[in-house]
Formats: sequence, C-alpha cells, structure tokens
Amino acid sequence: MELLKGAEVSAKIKEQAARMLEKLGGNVPKLAIVRVGERPDDMSYERGAIKKMEGFGLRVQSYVFPADISDQDFKEAFRNINQDEDVTGILLLRPLPKQICEADIERMIDPAKDLDGISPSNIAKVFAGDGTGFAPCTAEAVIEVLKANGIAISGKRVTIVGRSMVVGRPLSMLMLKENATVTICHTRTADLEGTCRSAEILVAAAGRAKMLDKRYVGQGAVVIDVGINVDENGKLCGDVDMDSISGAASMATPVPGGVGAVTTAVLAKHLLLAAGQKSG
Amino acid sequence: MELLKGAEVSAKIKEQAARMLEKLGGNVPKLAIVRVGERPDDMSYERGAIKKMEGFGLRVQSYVFPADISDQDFKEAFRNINQDEDVTGILLLRPLPKQICEADIERMIDPAKDLDGISPSNIAKVFAGDGTGFAPCTAEAVIEVLKANGIAISGKRVTIVGRSMVVGRPLSMLMLKENATVTICHTRTADLEGTCRSAEILVAAAGRAKMLDKRYVGQGAVVIDVGINVDENGKLCGDVDMDSISGAASMATPVPGGVGAVTTAVLAKHLLLAAGQKSG
Repeated sequence: MELLKGAEVSAKIKEQAARMLEKLGGNVPKLAIVRVGERPDDMSYERGAIKKMEGFGLRVQSYVFPADISDQDFKEAFRNINQDEDVTGILLLRPLPKQICEADIERMIDPAKDLDGISPSNIAKVFAGDGTGFAPCTAEAVIEVLKANGIAISGKRVTIVGRSMVVGRPLSMLMLKENATVTICHTRTADLEGTCRSAEILVAAAGRAKMLDKRYVGQGAVVIDVGINVDENGKLCGDVDMDSISGAASMATPVPGGVGAVTTAVLAKHLLLAAGQKSG
Repeated sequence: MELLKGAEVSAKIKEQAARMLEKLGGNVPKLAIVRVGERPDDMSYERGAIKKMEGFGLRVQSYVFPADISDQDFKEAFRNINQDEDVTGILLLRPLPKQICEADIERMIDPAKDLDGISPSNIAKVFAGDGTGFAPCTAEAVIEVLKANGIAISGKRVTIVGRSMVVGRPLSMLMLKENATVTICHTRTADLEGTCRSAEILVAAAGRAKMLDKRYVGQGAVVIDVGINVDENGKLCGDVDMDSISGAASMATPVPGGVGAVTTAVLAKHLLLAAGQKSG
C-alpha cells in the first residue's frame, strides 16, 4: 500500500500559490482567523494555518474573543473584520459558542471573503457545480490529493462515509463535478461494509476513530482518510485502521500527515483567489 | 407490479392543503406564474398548475412576457411582481431566453416567495437538510409519492439517475435527510446497469425516453419515473420502459399520471406554507 503524503500535495499547491502571488505584484493578501474561546482543536488548526500562510509568504492575523462574548458584541466585531479593506479573506473557527447565532454569521460573511465556504451563496455554488465560489477547504483538499497523485476520478465509484456540511455533503458535489458516481453513507446505512467495499475510491469522514478496517475496503481501492481523532493511547488517528487495510487498499492517506496538511494549503490558495478576484 | 398513481398522492396533499387554508382564515394566497415566451412545455405545465391551484381553492395569476423582452425590462417587471404584497409565491418557468441573466433573477427572488427553490438561500437550506426553506417541487414530489404509499426510505439503497439542479441534486439531499444511502449516477457512470440494479428505490431523472429497462431494475425494486419525454410515436413517456420492467419492479410511477401530478400539489402546499410564514 502506497502512502499518499499531504506534504507532497501541499508542495505542489505552493508552486501554484507562488505564481498567483507574483501576479498580485506586491499586494500580499491577508487572512483573518477568527476564534472564539480556547478550544484545543481550534488552536491546533489555527497554528497550522498560521504556519502555512507564513510558509506561503502570505499575511495572517488572529482575532481572538472570549468564550463568553455576547452575540451582539461578537457580531459587531465580526462586522468590522468583514468590512476591513485590509482583510482579504476570513477563516471562522467553528462551532461557535451557543450564545452566538452561527446562522446569522453565515449570512453576514462577505461571500468574496468566505474562504471556507460557509455562506449560503458559496454553498449554493458548490451544490450547483459552479466553480466561481469557495468550497469548504477540507472537502476540496480531498480532490487535490487525488489530482496531485494522478488518480482519475471520472466514472469511478466513489463512496463517502459521513454527511457533514464540512466534508461529506460538499465533497459529494465536488466529486459529482469530477464525474464520479457518488454514494453517500452514514450511520443509518444498512450495509455499510458492503457499500464501502464496492468503492474504487473510499473517503472516510465519519469522525470515529479507526472505524473502517479491512472489511470495508475493496481490493485495490484508494482510501482517503479525513478523520482526526484520538485513539485509546491518546495518539492522533484517522477514521481508518491503517494496519488492517494495508493488504487491501492500493493507496491511502495517513493521519496525521495526509489530508490535514492539504487543507491549509487549499485555504492559502483560496486566499490568493480572493485577492485575484478583488484586484480583477 | 403495482402502479403508484400521482392522483392519489395529490388527493392526500389536498387534504393537508385544505386544513392549512382553513387556518389562514379567509386570506387566500396567490401564486404568480411568470412565463417568458410561448414554449409548449411551459404552457402545458402552466395549465396544470392553474388547474391544481383552482382545484385546491387557491388564487393564481399568469404574468406572460414576450420571448424577446430585454433583460432590463424583464427585471423591472419581475421586481414588481416580487415586491407585490398581494403575491404570496412565485413560479418562474425556466429556462429563460438567453438575453435574460437567469442567475440575477435567482438572486433577486424573495426566498420567502421562492416556491420552487431557485434562490441561493433555499438551495443552501436544501443542501444543509434545513427544512425551513423550499426545495424544488419535483424533487419533493418524489419524497411525497414514497411517503404517501408507505414506502420506507430510511436505510434504503436509493439510486438517482440524473444530476440536474431541478431533480437529481436536490433530491439526493432530500433522500439523505430521510436517512437513505444515496447514489447519484449520470451519463459518465461506468456501470450504470449494475449500479441501478442494486437499488431498492430507483429514481429516473435523466431526461431520456425509456432509457431504463429491465436490465436496470433489481427484483422487487420501487421505481420512480421523473422523466417527461415524447416517444417515437409522439406519445408522452418517461425515462423508464414500463412494459420491460413490469416483471422486476414491485411498484412504479406511470408517465403521465405519476410524479407530474404530485409536483403541482407540492407547489400548492408550498404556497400555503409561504402564506403561513407570512402571517406568522
């Protein structure tokens, strides 16, 4: 089984990014990372994003608010960031604390700055297969991993386990745009094993540590693991049991070091796209 | 093979509609049908919708514009209909002639009056499984046919042939909301026969006369035919070859007299929902 490493995909995106940055002629775009509270997952993702932006030669600024900020105060602050001419794009770390109406923020965010595709306008574009909007970075990272490794998608049987708005649903539409035959599975799927095993490309985005083992993987399948979990020994792991599938899958992305590393590279690319659209 | 007749489903929706109308206390909602040009398909659908609204005791008015109306003139007229307090909901017959920017109209239509789910706001809601918006009526009609006939969807293998924004894509999300395991097929699907044959519920929305015959239908499958085509003898027919599948399918919707009859009933229900939301 060949390991599909995220770093190599990220390096390819970095080359594209360098060309895009050059075209902007010195106007280095700026990412605003908006975080409410101190959740370790958010802070870990934030650190990764900052490192990636800096590595790509892009500007980044964190805006951090207390976990108990009121709905009104947060919206006022968010409106200022959203309207700030110096902010090219925004990454909002979610979920937000309960007192803040997340749906209002989704409607408020400028679609042109909505790099992670949370606004209705960008969601509708992803749904329609309209590439002018921004898809959620993690979903798009899966496509990038396949393309960077020369894995054909068109006509293939692709099975996605998980139906979240961050990965499963948008990825199903991105896969459809690439002409895959797409199956979406979830906790209520009657024969999850059989459905997964018939896939040529299997994407695990269920959020359950090592739930997919060799019983779920057809011979020669490509397995993309989007899960980020902690196993019984406190170690980071994906939704796939890597040791178990190594005899069945032809290729698979590791966790850590797989899709996660590509997600922030896609974020950087989106930032550059936003800057390009702004400058016309 | 049992035929699932649209008229029976429509009659059940009519009962719901009567109760909804009663609650509105004499404020009979009004549907605006907006048509540009004289395309026979549009006019046939319009006649069916008018008849259904009248049968349900609802008001309906057609707004007809010449096929060569300018983009600017149409938008001005559409804006007036959209803002008219007396208009509860709008059905826009599409596609519009090329000189009119359809995407602008989709963004312009008031989501609260957008009964056929063409606005980004409603599309995003359907995508997210948020039932507060309006799904395209034809997609929702498929769900209504299954529910009215007591056919369980949860956990079932549902295969949809076709990926349009009117049926395939939104229906995939409505099916997901009902906890189906959903597969979306299309012209680029490698093994269309096999993929369709493994479905417990098969939905044909490809727009090709009689393309699905017994080779595509598993034993005992439920077949929903959304196609409306004209066959080699000039007769109306669906995407399914009914004579061929009768030995395999357990149930199927006929064309005409199947999903089409339910679509306008769903439109009426949406009109009443819009009126209910307006009156709080």
